[in-house]
Amino acid sequence: MSESDKQQIAERSAATMYSRDHASQALGMRIIEMRPGSAKLAMTVRQDMVNGHAICHGGLIFTLADSAFAFACNSYNHTTVAAGASIDFLGPAHLGDELTADAHEVWRSRRSGIYEIVVTNQRGERLALFRGRSHQLDGRLFEPDGTES
Amino acid sequence: MSESDKQQIAERSAATMYSRDHASQALGMRIIEMRPGSAKLAMTVRQDMVNGHAICHGGLIFTLADSAFAFACNSYNHTTVAAGASIDFLGPAHLGDELTADAHEVWRSRRSGIYEIVVTNQRGERLALFRGRSHQLDGRLFEPDGTES
Amino acid sequence: MSESDKQQIAERSAATMYSRDHASQALGMRIIEMRPGSAKLAMTVRQDMVNGHAICHGGLIFTLADSAFAFACNSYNHTTVAAGASIDFLGPAHLGDELTADAHEVWRSRRSGIYEIVVTNQRGERLALFRGRSHQLDGRLFEPDGTES
Amino acid sequence: MSESDKQQIAERSAATMYSRDHASQALGMRIIEMRPGSAKLAMTVRQDMVNGHAICHGGLIFTLADSAFAFACNSYNHTTVAAGASIDFLGPAHLGDELTADAHEVWRSRRSGIYEIVVTNQRGERLALFRGRSHQLDGRLFEPDGTES
Repeated sequence: MSESDKQQIAERSAATMYSRDHASQALGMRIIEMRPGSAKLAMTVRQDMVNGHAICHGGLIFTLADSAFAFACNSYNHTTVAAGASIDFLGPAHLGDELTADAHEVWRSRRSGIYEIVVTNQRGERLALFRGRSHQLDGRLFEPDGTES
Repeated sequence: MSESDKQQIAERSAATMYSRDHASQALGMRIIEMRPGSAKLAMTVRQDMVNGHAICHGGLIFTLADSAFAFACNSYNHTTVAAGASIDFLGPAHLGDELTADAHEVWRSRRSGIYEIVVTNQRGERLALFRGRSHQLDGRLFEPDGTES
Repeated sequence: MSESDKQQIAERSAATMYSRDHASQALGMRIIEMRPGSAKLAMTVRQDMVNGHAICHGGLIFTLADSAFAFACNSYNHTTVAAGASIDFLGPAHLGDELTADAHEVWRSRRSGIYEIVVTNQRGERLALFRGRSHQLDGRLFEPDGTES
Repeated sequence: MSESDKQQIAERSAATMYSRDHASQALGMRIIEMRPGSAKLAMTVRQDMVNGHAICHGGLIFTLADSAFAFACNSYNHTTVAAGASIDFLGPAHLGDELTADAHEVWRSRRSGIYEIVVTNQRGERLALFRGRSHQLDGRLFEPDGTES
């Protein structure tokens, strides 16, 4: 398969996933970039994402990273789920911050994969390091002829 | 300090945190139970938490567990933050499911702590296992005389 | 299958594994207790396990926990390997300390399992918390008629 | 401080640590390369490191990675210990394999650090991915005038 075909599959997998993903939409996530095995998502820290100190809830930083992870590991049009993940919190995100989660594939076997996701703010400061383990199921996101499955 | 005093501090720490925590409120989390070092929170899986398969976003399951972790590790009225966490996803949560996150302290030193959180559904099935590492800062959540800090 | 049969399988799985496990033998590990899904191993901290401060190498504490994990997840006579693990180091082990690793099963599906292992010293102080993920392969440790596979 | 001075400190920190580290010596580990924040160590899989299938014990792969991690995070001549680590096992190591653990610093604050270590075999195949969290104590490995502390 050509690089261009792979890229097209990655973009269509992302579009299919995003259209179904009410959670990522509700949190205002945007797809910035898609490549086979990689994804970059952005999210702005809103009032309903923070605690009383105007610091973003760590769970929502995780959720942004987890979405980027999901888009990256599903970029081959094989339905793939998260088996587990770990996160290290390096610094706080504040109200209004523009967060970016950059996911890339570290390793992939037939059924399993490992992805690293770095979450940064608008100044490029790293806020969190996320490592996810994926597990591939049998289905596809969409049919080769274009029908979503 | 008496057990009753410790329990009062745990409950007041939770009330103080919850009142400031827009994120946990926006996700509809409720405090079910508080004890020194422990917390139980509940959350109903809503339409805006799921993907197109009506499966709850794993990041929001993490977020529920992370909130329970935060309430548990802040139950001594010492400002405490999450340093990191890991999660294993055991099974999916569906639209309408009633999730419970049960956090308990596994170990605590002067500044650090380890907490385990189990997320279950309304049938008692375990959906996720979360382990969090906490780091205690210098401040307090509220002043002994009752003023929030 | 009766509890007694399961117990017999657990003990025979352990005996089979231990007889082949040059590494655990070379480190002087002893099997203290076996049950289906559980294992307890012991190890004495020797001179060749410590650094210049007479503190046991963390990797060897991990190795003790990893062996207990392996014995626990192989206790059903299904060949099972470690997919990954995480460890938190709570305190140091010293030359001459008697370490015990207590492994128990937290969750198990058809192919995967999660085990928690606590490493303590001779005073019952917890030195490390280990969580392992197992993956079951197709083979067996020994044949029902008693032949090792 | 000049790059050359930093390099000298990294090398001397490693030499000091290695001279005290009976465990890494007993396992036949060799220092291949040292730089500030980085370390590369090698180890040959011996008979006393394998199980009956001639597969290296996962704990000893962890131990090699953990030593590389320790050398990397102690390369500034500040006594630093491992707070925790996680490992993903990607493939087996066999008797006679030449393993290399390559540690590099991902992030470092005043007291904490995160390091990633990749373990490969003589064919460059990745066998394990290790992520360690370090915690800096108050002491030094050696005095500026050259005396070991």
